[in-house]
Amino acid sequence: MNGQNGALEQNETGRVEAFSDGVFAIAATLLVFNLHVPDALGVHSGGGLWRDLTHHWPSYAAFVISFISILVMWSSHHNIFNLIRRVDHTFLLLNGLVLLGIAATPFTTSLLAQNFGHPGERVAAAVYSAVALFITLAFNAMWHYAARGRRLLAATTSAGQVRGVARQYAVGPLAFALALALSLVSAEASVLVFVAVEVFFALPFGPNRSVPETS
Amino acid sequence: MNGQNGALEQNETGRVEAFSDGVFAIAATLLVFNLHVPDALGVHSGGGLWRDLTHHWPSYAAFVISFISILVMWSSHHNIFNLIRRVDHTFLLLNGLVLLGIAATPFTTSLLAQNFGHPGERVAAAVYSAVALFITLAFNAMWHYAARGRRLLAATTSAGQVRGVARQYAVGPLAFALALALSLVSAEASVLVFVAVEVFFALPFGPNRSVPETS
Amino acid sequence: MNGQNGALEQNETGRVEAFSDGVFAIAATLLVFNLHVPDALGVHSGGGLWRDLTHHWPSYAAFVISFISILVMWSSHHNIFNLIRRVDHTFLLLNGLVLLGIAATPFTTSLLAQNFGHPGERVAAAVYSAVALFITLAFNAMWHYAARGRRLLAATTSAGQVRGVARQYAVGPLAFALALALSLVSAEASVLVFVAVEVFFALPFGPNRSVPETS
Amino acid sequence: MNGQNGALEQNETGRVEAFSDGVFAIAATLLVFNLHVPDALGVHSGGGLWRDLTHHWPSYAAFVISFISILVMWSSHHNIFNLIRRVDHTFLLLNGLVLLGIAATPFTTSLLAQNFGHPGERVAAAVYSAVALFITLAFNAMWHYAARGRRLLAATTSAGQVRGVARQYAVGPLAFALALALSLVSAEASVLVFVAVEVFFALPFGPNRSVPETS
Repeated sequence: MNGQNGALEQNETGRVEAFSDGVFAIAATLLVFNLHVPDALGVHSGGGLWRDLTHHWPSYAAFVISFISILVMWSSHHNIFNLIRRVDHTFLLLNGLVLLGIAATPFTTSLLAQNFGHPGERVAAAVYSAVALFITLAFNAMWHYAARGRRLLAATTSAGQVRGVARQYAVGPLAFALALALSLVSAEASVLVFVAVEVFFALPFGPNRSVPETS
Repeated sequence: MNGQNGALEQNETGRVEAFSDGVFAIAATLLVFNLHVPDALGVHSGGGLWRDLTHHWPSYAAFVISFISILVMWSSHHNIFNLIRRVDHTFLLLNGLVLLGIAATPFTTSLLAQNFGHPGERVAAAVYSAVALFITLAFNAMWHYAARGRRLLAATTSAGQVRGVARQYAVGPLAFALALALSLVSAEASVLVFVAVEVFFALPFGPNRSVPETS
Repeated sequence: MNGQNGALEQNETGRVEAFSDGVFAIAATLLVFNLHVPDALGVHSGGGLWRDLTHHWPSYAAFVISFISILVMWSSHHNIFNLIRRVDHTFLLLNGLVLLGIAATPFTTSLLAQNFGHPGERVAAAVYSAVALFITLAFNAMWHYAARGRRLLAATTSAGQVRGVARQYAVGPLAFALALALSLVSAEASVLVFVAVEVFFALPFGPNRSVPETS
Repeated sequence: MNGQNGALEQNETGRVEAFSDGVFAIAATLLVFNLHVPDALGVHSGGGLWRDLTHHWPSYAAFVISFISILVMWSSHHNIFNLIRRVDHTFLLLNGLVLLGIAATPFTTSLLAQNFGHPGERVAAAVYSAVALFITLAFNAMWHYAARGRRLLAATTSAGQVRGVARQYAVGPLAFALALALSLVSAEASVLVFVAVEVFFALPFGPNRSVPETS
């Protein structure tokens, strides 16, 4: 099990996963700062607080959409690591680009939530979509690098699994390029693409089903 | 140990636990931002700072109540993972809903702390209770999904343990539905339900005692 | 290796450590929000920024003191887990109290830093010391609970190690009770106790040296 | 495998890595708070939001530069732990100094981003460079302490690997001392050193390539 070309040992994937899990979990949890807590001094009645909260519904919607989006991306990340046995320098770099986009998501979420329904909503939706597109392109680069010539794959990974991941990973760039294009016309249409992708991934016959059979 | 229906391998539960632990630990620690640091420039004496701090006692009480609440929920989460051997797509989704509610808790805590003693307190207590109710319903869905027909259970998990968890998990939805109902009448009564649940779980003969005998 | 009285299995200590490590690491890193970033619009020259930064030296000092304090406490926490083989419900509760105090530390640090040199400095030092005292008392309760009758200890833990930890753990409550008493008179004297404890723990012949010989 | 002089057992390096990974991952993700979310109420058109965002390009550049910087430092940290088999008290202290600098990086990043293009930019670049220099000096102290007389090294670590790490680690202090010196003259020149170091580490024939061959 000698390392070649600077490849790290198999059990090294553990620490890369731990660091990556940390970034995913922190980014998902930091989304909470996007939620609007009204100033109690400006609240004159229970109904007033309720109106203030419901007035900020885009914050709650953006929180849920981005949280699920990060969960789905974490799950995709997870799947790759079931199928590879080692990492190398280039793979770590591509993984770093994925994490960079994930770490930026609380910002793009806040930008979208605060501008939804305001004049800047289409620009905000474009930034939100562009970062999601960047993340999925980095995911694809990471997977194609790992799978080319079975460079980093585990011996137990089947050709069918490799094709399955490639097929699943193709969804993201297509969907988020569409979301980016739609943002030029309508922020609502752009956001609906994200909702549709999440529903698609949540479906019992969705793409996550077919991948993890590492057996 | 072949995966079926997209089930992940047993050691895969490790990474789900690590990610979930991250969200629980981060949400618990982010509660600190709920604590009020008075502006030093407005403090003219030690007594002034002391009065300012004690004036914000709901912040400290809410910090402690929510921190212990997240600890108890983490402990419940932990118990499930002692009893299952694998996870699948649906289980991950239900786990994601639990984590979504946990991640929102620093927000509901801040909302409750800032509005306690103000006109919005009952609305704030209702939102706080509703998110706690959502978390415990997701926990129950997760456990019943895992235990139905012993779908995801470890071979060593006894029928008595399954009944024990189901009984313990029934406490949360009942208690927090009560807290939600009480919030319509009194924020204080609603919060007292949370304190009572935490004292109940902390008792040496409480429900946590009977579950983890995985032996 | 049957569980008794709700005791969790040995490998269960792993997840308690992971969750606790998360809280320690997050609390330590959140201290950064205590550091003062001057508003660039109010800065009219490089010298002006430099004066603004140096004017806030108590923030930087408090950051370093609290960061090292959390590191030393993490190290103490770590030592306990080298010597025990299982956890139970009461132990988890006491561990939860330790984590509650750790999670509150970014708040007490901010309170101290912002009030140092202002009229509220002694009250702030008292709150800072009181939380540190609370943490070390919880640590002692946790250790004495685990060690009484060797309740949770690993078979390899020697009587000498048990006495060593008890001796080392006695330092904290004594030192921080002194810091609390001194805060009534002088914030500076109170803070110096923290610096002294940290230097003491950093010394090569300090108390950390004698404990971890689990061999 | 008896511990000597308070050295912890080999598997103890695991928990030090986990805690350190936490600090690296949290510090990297907290950089997101450096990104500027314009107040939606002040945005009167999509073009207005776009101008506001592009106006804050130093924030985005600083986010990317610091994120990659923390990734590279995490990777360096990671490499050390592939080559050692145990940690002791002094090593933990030096590791704590590395983490202290990492935890301060969101602050220095924010300071740099907000002052870039303003009168304080050179002071900000000096502080940014000084903390990076501090981190790399702590890294060197940690490695030289571990490697002296093979004090903490694994038996499988070759003399070539020890020299390789020492050579790689020499880059940081030289580069960041240069960045510190340049900051007296030009903030832009100082920042370019960071970009150059990151490109150098990202190159396929860069220094990371030669180290991890633990085989």
